[in-house]
Amino acid sequence: QKNRVYTSYREMILIEKSLPENERMDFVSIVTPNFLHFDPCKLALENGFHVMCEKPVAFNLDEAKALETIVLKSNLVFALTHNYTSYPMVKEAKSIIKEGKLGKIFKVIAEYQQGWLSENIESSGQKQALWRTDKSKAGISCCVADIGTHAENLTEYVTGLKIKELCADITSFVEGRELEDDANMLVRFDNGAKGAIIVSQVASGEENELKLRVFGEKGNLEWLQSDPNNLILKLADTPKQVLRPGNKYLNAETQLYTRLPAGHPEGYIESLANLYKNFGKEILKFKSGKIVNYEELEFPSISDGVRGMRFIDAVIHSGKNNSCWVII
Amino acid sequence: QKNRVYTSYREMILIEKSLPENERMDFVSIVTPNFLHFDPCKLALENGFHVMCEKPVAFNLDEAKALETIVLKSNLVFALTHNYTSYPMVKEAKSIIKEGKLGKIFKVIAEYQQGWLSENIESSGQKQALWRTDKSKAGISCCVADIGTHAENLTEYVTGLKIKELCADITSFVEGRELEDDANMLVRFDNGAKGAIIVSQVASGEENELKLRVFGEKGNLEWLQSDPNNLILKLADTPKQVLRPGNKYLNAETQLYTRLPAGHPEGYIESLANLYKNFGKEILKFKSGKIVNYEELEFPSISDGVRGMRFIDAVIHSGKNNSCWVII
Amino acid sequence: QKNRVYTSYREMILIEKSLPENERMDFVSIVTPNFLHFDPCKLALENGFHVMCEKPVAFNLDEAKALETIVLKSNLVFALTHNYTSYPMVKEAKSIIKEGKLGKIFKVIAEYQQGWLSENIESSGQKQALWRTDKSKAGISCCVADIGTHAENLTEYVTGLKIKELCADITSFVEGRELEDDANMLVRFDNGAKGAIIVSQVASGEENELKLRVFGEKGNLEWLQSDPNNLILKLADTPKQVLRPGNKYLNAETQLYTRLPAGHPEGYIESLANLYKNFGKEILKFKSGKIVNYEELEFPSISDGVRGMRFIDAVIHSGKNNSCWVII
Amino acid sequence: QKNRVYTSYREMILIEKSLPENERMDFVSIVTPNFLHFDPCKLALENGFHVMCEKPVAFNLDEAKALETIVLKSNLVFALTHNYTSYPMVKEAKSIIKEGKLGKIFKVIAEYQQGWLSENIESSGQKQALWRTDKSKAGISCCVADIGTHAENLTEYVTGLKIKELCADITSFVEGRELEDDANMLVRFDNGAKGAIIVSQVASGEENELKLRVFGEKGNLEWLQSDPNNLILKLADTPKQVLRPGNKYLNAETQLYTRLPAGHPEGYIESLANLYKNFGKEILKFKSGKIVNYEELEFPSISDGVRGMRFIDAVIHSGKNNSCWVII
Repeated sequence: QKNRVYTSYREMILIEKSLPENERMDFVSIVTPNFLHFDPCKLALENGFHVMCEKPVAFNLDEAKALETIVLKSNLVFALTHNYTSYPMVKEAKSIIKEGKLGKIFKVIAEYQQGWLSENIESSGQKQALWRTDKSKAGISCCVADIGTHAENLTEYVTGLKIKELCADITSFVEGRELEDDANMLVRFDNGAKGAIIVSQVASGEENELKLRVFGEKGNLEWLQSDPNNLILKLADTPKQVLRPGNKYLNAETQLYTRLPAGHPEGYIESLANLYKNFGKEILKFKSGKIVNYEELEFPSISDGVRGMRFIDAVIHSGKNNSCWVII
Repeated sequence: QKNRVYTSYREMILIEKSLPENERMDFVSIVTPNFLHFDPCKLALENGFHVMCEKPVAFNLDEAKALETIVLKSNLVFALTHNYTSYPMVKEAKSIIKEGKLGKIFKVIAEYQQGWLSENIESSGQKQALWRTDKSKAGISCCVADIGTHAENLTEYVTGLKIKELCADITSFVEGRELEDDANMLVRFDNGAKGAIIVSQVASGEENELKLRVFGEKGNLEWLQSDPNNLILKLADTPKQVLRPGNKYLNAETQLYTRLPAGHPEGYIESLANLYKNFGKEILKFKSGKIVNYEELEFPSISDGVRGMRFIDAVIHSGKNNSCWVII
Repeated sequence: QKNRVYTSYREMILIEKSLPENERMDFVSIVTPNFLHFDPCKLALENGFHVMCEKPVAFNLDEAKALETIVLKSNLVFALTHNYTSYPMVKEAKSIIKEGKLGKIFKVIAEYQQGWLSENIESSGQKQALWRTDKSKAGISCCVADIGTHAENLTEYVTGLKIKELCADITSFVEGRELEDDANMLVRFDNGAKGAIIVSQVASGEENELKLRVFGEKGNLEWLQSDPNNLILKLADTPKQVLRPGNKYLNAETQLYTRLPAGHPEGYIESLANLYKNFGKEILKFKSGKIVNYEELEFPSISDGVRGMRFIDAVIHSGKNNSCWVII
Repeated sequence: QKNRVYTSYREMILIEKSLPENERMDFVSIVTPNFLHFDPCKLALENGFHVMCEKPVAFNLDEAKALETIVLKSNLVFALTHNYTSYPMVKEAKSIIKEGKLGKIFKVIAEYQQGWLSENIESSGQKQALWRTDKSKAGISCCVADIGTHAENLTEYVTGLKIKELCADITSFVEGRELEDDANMLVRFDNGAKGAIIVSQVASGEENELKLRVFGEKGNLEWLQSDPNNLILKLADTPKQVLRPGNKYLNAETQLYTRLPAGHPEGYIESLANLYKNFGKEILKFKSGKIVNYEELEFPSISDGVRGMRFIDAVIHSGKNNSCWVII
């Protein structure tokens, strides 16, 4: 309805709030640049609206912590669009590891390679590049904030492990760029596992290659976002396996995230839809009176957002201090 | 001929030397464990025999340097079996980079994943595992010495760059193992490029995955040893390309390293054969009176051997010193 | 709105027709079994509603021809859900061939392999299997009608050629099944090209593998529905190429069928959406007064439907007559 | 030794025969064009030499039958270089089917696509093309004789089934070529299975793509010569599996055909070596007094040769007679 198009988020939130409860909007989706996350999140939450927010959750760690306080106090549903965690084969990967099929996890390699910032396209005004490479809009990081946080979040989501500390080497390869466009990190996990997170926005020739590999004492698995329907599982002394959505051999939980029969490919949009579905289910529970338990949500929420900001801080700090180890 | 089977390398070298020149052996191939490289190399060279030696070239850096002096003084042909550099598609990768098709190199990711040491098979006497995990036979390193040097050598060979410094995180994942079986390294190159070298012998489920990716400002390439006949080239704003041996579109140099028509797969043995062919050609030149120019050999030689030992030293030093940066 | 859910298509069509023009539905989507295509199509068209109909277009060829007369007389928009023709990389394949990049077409191999009818699941009442294997509901063919027509339609759509004649070997592998569940066909095209169409619903282990390969004098291309975002192009004496959606090197026309940046995978749903988008655009043109030109629609329509029925007839006739050549 | 290089096969065979038994050659390898198989085979066998002969075994079926009589009478070892049957993963495929893992076989698709005859290179004197396209040297067939027989032999070897009858469509696509350069065949097997064999030497852009797919009631397998170390196995309701050489999970028999540890790729040369190894073992048995049992050889022999000639005859006859079914 045309009369519900607003000229600002402030106007939207305040006018919607004034509508009768059964007519007003249910939630706000925030897809603005990083420096414009905190204010609309805060306003929405303080006026009773659930929030789906883009990552990284805020402009800096302080904002993220402040937002966490607001969310927890609000008791509203808050989700972060780390949608890559919502692909069916990512759910399956998580199940496989949880069941112990890989044994104790030894090593994790997460990568995210993009090539679109290989040239200084911000100087010719490309909109998406402009704010991401601008300290005043993106915060202290370009590449790590934009895609490194996806790699970090996916790693912790799938393995169930926490990154304990990291050391990083960060670079601005493209001339005239003040924020880093490339970062390589060594990481150590809370269970003793080791690993690397390797991200770049100047990997010329690459599209959008987010890849996760997890190695345990009994085998390893591998998932690649640009080929999301093939989960590769290599168990020791066993033929390599390729698991695909829509098949009976998958975990029951995984089945919930596929809409089509096996062999009918799904992609990025469906991963977002899966995220929104879980978000929506939680809102329905809220409406039926359930109190939100922020520890048990089946989607990334404010704690993941704060963690992502800690990760960014740690990488940039290490990168500027001779790749020292930094606890996150 | 049975009468030329000897009971020791000493006996072999001394008796062969006593044969008439046109009857004696041409060269010695040394495929013993690391602690048994230096002595037979030295004896062979000092008695006038060319040498093909396994990597890493020696037990430690001091031995390697001493061997370098002996080689240079001998003026004999010396080769190191980094045979992975002899695959035709590796030659092609080197040509592509040299021609500048990728532009300035920004980033290199080299990996070598094996799973065969995921369990403590040395404790049950597995011969190959036994000496590689034994400090007194392998030297200060297991995984980095055995396969990390392949990744390092392949990286420098293909890119033409030198690793300037590195920081490393090394681990012995398998209980009771004194040497590392896993290592992750951040590396910096002499041209300003950055990268990572990630190696493991406890990557359970993996066979022998040596993979090199090189990213430049105009595109990237990728080569995987277990699928050696497909060189993947992704240039910016161009369809992904797959280059294969035996085709006219390859560099003339590359053509020298293929024996069969396109579509007839070659593998590991042929890569070794290519290495030996170049080694043999150099011996023939020697016989015709040419003085060996150690800077212009088309195979890894003593300087690569010394460099490999420096690499091992740097990784282990960094790994034991909080992942500090170490110049190599 | 609940008051627009109807108990039959007849009721729906008649009541909707009685609504004011700006309130009534725009078109009817027919996704019923084959024997239930003709009647609702006819009723919809005769009452002024555009139609999107499932394939094969009718229960038999006579019905299809009758429907063709009705469609042409109606001057309404009619589409057939051969949605596989709407994938962006299928559009690109068509462009490449039209531009002559493959030269004269010599050979086409189309396949469609499914495994879901490997067992007699109709006997235990599986709904999708029940009507497809039932002569009174599916018509004279199971496998060829259900998936063979997709292979036939995709072949003619991409190549721009027409199948002139075919010979076929048809089989019911599963005991107790009266209609064929497998068919192999040799085909000849109007330009002299040859080929094969190989389809099966008893290819146990396969999901939904629709694959098209087109060979011309200058090269060939290959597209696989279960990996829809990689179009493989092999030109003579040129590295194999892999073309992917969202890239600037694609034809302008192809770009219209992708919604997301390169590297964000799209799938089956988006191919359907592309089909509906083109269908919708034609309806909008109709509303603005344009007369439908059935020869120039950018989606499969009634002539494709009739052609599909001729194909089914030819295959079954050949299959029952010692694989004689049959003109279609 | 230079004094054993001969100017003709006649000279070679007769002079070698005159040498003392422990000095003379063991066997003859015949790699001449088709019209030059029979005579040297005959002469060698009649003078007591074992024979390894190129495929197809003879110039025509009559010659093949005559040769069969000679072989059987000679009691010498005779092998045909269908070396593709000697890849380790082909041995594994045969084992899997023999064990019944795929259940009853329903369907087989064999393909062999090459592009090297896409142009009339024989007219410019290309040696390999010249005789293969010349009726007086190749016989009645070019493409089917040269590569179709490989597809036929591999099919029967792996499945253990016999082709009972076939119908074929054959074409000479390149102007001025008298023999066929492309053929598509429907086939029926002795167990009721159906299938297709699709071969071409004008598949421009292809190198040497021999591919076999076998579908049974419980699953299917797939092997591709240009990627010989990956055997794909898809069992119903099970993740896709990829079996690779050198692993413990393979059949014991398969292990005999690999020389290197898993992950060290082998190729075409090794497949030939496997063939020669089995041939050599049979010669050793012969030398130790064992009578050759032509039904139990672990390599293709004279019966396969005759069968190949029958296959060629059947395809060409069907192709020239409106694709009628021909029993082979």
